[in-house]
Amino acid sequence: MTTSRLEAFSDGVIAIIVTIMVLELRAPSQATWGALLKIAPIFLSYGLSFLVVAIMWVNHHHLIHAVRDVTARLLWSNLNLLFWMSLVPFVTDFLGKHYHEPMAVALYGLDLALCGTAFTLLRTELIRQDRNHDTLPEHHSTMRRKNAFTVALYLLSVPLAYVTIYASFLIFVLIPAMYFLPDKKDATSAR
Amino acid sequence: MTTSRLEAFSDGVIAIIVTIMVLELRAPSQATWGALLKIAPIFLSYGLSFLVVAIMWVNHHHLIHAVRDVTARLLWSNLNLLFWMSLVPFVTDFLGKHYHEPMAVALYGLDLALCGTAFTLLRTELIRQDRNHDTLPEHHSTMRRKNAFTVALYLLSVPLAYVTIYASFLIFVLIPAMYFLPDKKDATSAR
Amino acid sequence: MTTSRLEAFSDGVIAIIVTIMVLELRAPSQATWGALLKIAPIFLSYGLSFLVVAIMWVNHHHLIHAVRDVTARLLWSNLNLLFWMSLVPFVTDFLGKHYHEPMAVALYGLDLALCGTAFTLLRTELIRQDRNHDTLPEHHSTMRRKNAFTVALYLLSVPLAYVTIYASFLIFVLIPAMYFLPDKKDATSAR
Amino acid sequence: MTTSRLEAFSDGVIAIIVTIMVLELRAPSQATWGALLKIAPIFLSYGLSFLVVAIMWVNHHHLIHAVRDVTARLLWSNLNLLFWMSLVPFVTDFLGKHYHEPMAVALYGLDLALCGTAFTLLRTELIRQDRNHDTLPEHHSTMRRKNAFTVALYLLSVPLAYVTIYASFLIFVLIPAMYFLPDKKDATSAR
Repeated sequence: MTTSRLEAFSDGVIAIIVTIMVLELRAPSQATWGALLKIAPIFLSYGLSFLVVAIMWVNHHHLIHAVRDVTARLLWSNLNLLFWMSLVPFVTDFLGKHYHEPMAVALYGLDLALCGTAFTLLRTELIRQDRNHDTLPEHHSTMRRKNAFTVALYLLSVPLAYVTIYASFLIFVLIPAMYFLPDKKDATSAR
Repeated sequence: MTTSRLEAFSDGVIAIIVTIMVLELRAPSQATWGALLKIAPIFLSYGLSFLVVAIMWVNHHHLIHAVRDVTARLLWSNLNLLFWMSLVPFVTDFLGKHYHEPMAVALYGLDLALCGTAFTLLRTELIRQDRNHDTLPEHHSTMRRKNAFTVALYLLSVPLAYVTIYASFLIFVLIPAMYFLPDKKDATSAR
Repeated sequence: MTTSRLEAFSDGVIAIIVTIMVLELRAPSQATWGALLKIAPIFLSYGLSFLVVAIMWVNHHHLIHAVRDVTARLLWSNLNLLFWMSLVPFVTDFLGKHYHEPMAVALYGLDLALCGTAFTLLRTELIRQDRNHDTLPEHHSTMRRKNAFTVALYLLSVPLAYVTIYASFLIFVLIPAMYFLPDKKDATSAR
Repeated sequence: MTTSRLEAFSDGVIAIIVTIMVLELRAPSQATWGALLKIAPIFLSYGLSFLVVAIMWVNHHHLIHAVRDVTARLLWSNLNLLFWMSLVPFVTDFLGKHYHEPMAVALYGLDLALCGTAFTLLRTELIRQDRNHDTLPEHHSTMRRKNAFTVALYLLSVPLAYVTIYASFLIFVLIPAMYFLPDKKDATSAR
């Protein structure tokens, strides 16, 4: 299997994940701005997840580009990531419907923590491949640290939701902001 | 990231957007032409949105072809566009169910205005890239003017819906017609 | 626009059309073979439409391969075809739920007739492109005749449904069979 | 038709199959871990099917890579496989909702047996193509034996579900495990 095939399939799955989430946005039965306001939490959780999945897509792309051999370990590390990403529409819908409930907030944070862990595993597999080549190890370890930090924050959001959901929401908003800024540099350098 | 990757992912998302809208067309519980006639507004709003998204796809394709560097700004301008486009199935469904309500008509116009604005931002990013190259600036400024005109019309459809929804519908039908004709020339020249 | 882009986008849309139809197959509330038998008409109409769309995909592929220039006329002829194809999940669901009602049978035949007409328009556009080249006109006219015959049969199934739905179903089953056989030769020659 | 086109279309369909299954995971009406636990069977059946479809995707990819000529027989063998695979979301949803009912377990096993049979037919077609070339016949016959063994096990799970559903579930879990291990070697050698 070539990396381009792996990428094409992953892209297909990610494109579907990001798009089917909009199916959760059901048209309110009344055409008033008040009725629309009631589904604002569903809309906001959709917007947040769109951003999160978009960031994952950009990161996934950069990561796969560094792949040398599509080994079985790598293939299954990637499928593992796609599995947890495929649950994003579910936890998003759940969060949108129960945004004031600690448990729904915790579940959202948990799935994103699992996605982050899957990213870490995928990168670990990449680093293993690069051991014999000793190129870009600096970049990898920087990214892995950043990734581990993200996972830690998302994991923190799980118990924190039971203290105050606002702290968890702060984490959900801060992490995309954090990724968003450095990615600017990344994408520029990866022209 | 290469433009072909950006294009492939965008195409995937647009193909899904255009196709999942048909899921809103629910089979009437009775198999009569009368029952089918009742969902005619849903069908018509689907047809309109199919046309609008198809035009956006064609324009998006031409626009991405002019890209030189996939910078982070461009990447996120594109994701911003895809986000507003992904809301088309939602506003379409809403319009189909409440076609006689000013608010649903206004919301439809608003989302298309936001899509148009996202197109303008994407083109502005492109023009910025071309500043140092000074090629096809004529084409860009013509297209940007046309784009700004479209956005203005869609924005106008928002308050207009509260005066008379028919004026807004006229705008919704005129804009595709306007884009449809010039695209003939565009596509021919872009063989 | 290149033919490969046109093909990739069309493929995406067709792949989604063929797959989302399965979403209409709702799990019966009781896990008995009797309950499953009740949704047999929905299953059969799904199977039929899967076959019909698969045949259209194969034919579409051969047709696009003969394209020389992606003109605006061709682009919009293709989008016109995709629009009528995108309604297949809707008419399939409708047929599955009301298989004994002439109107649902007629609507199914009508949409397939419109798909066939869209194919004819697409091929007419192709023949126009080939006028100056005079190659494979024989093949085109054979296929156009075959296509016109299919459209005529599907159109016939519309009024026929009001006489007896079995005659229309016979047409629905015969046409795929007819296309299926010659395609064997086509695909072989198109290795 | 080229193998890359066949692969791209199949990939599109498989990516959609694997992703739309998540739509069956409906957000519980209450945000409690207890309510989430109630949909655990739906989640587990989703996870199992994700794994099964992912394995089929990997195997399908290796199989298509060995294709020499995209004949009509091969094309339709492939579409036949995609049809039975497209039913996986349906039988998965059914299993998730009625996991304690022999009939739902039997139906799940039956569809996977049909997918396995479709794989066997596709490989038989490949072997027929290779008859004149006599390369990799060893690999093919090994894989065909393995495939036939899988089909036999899945078929066995159908009546077994009426004895004890646990035996069928054991088969459902063992087969992916069996495929998972050897694929490691396969993917490595197919770098």
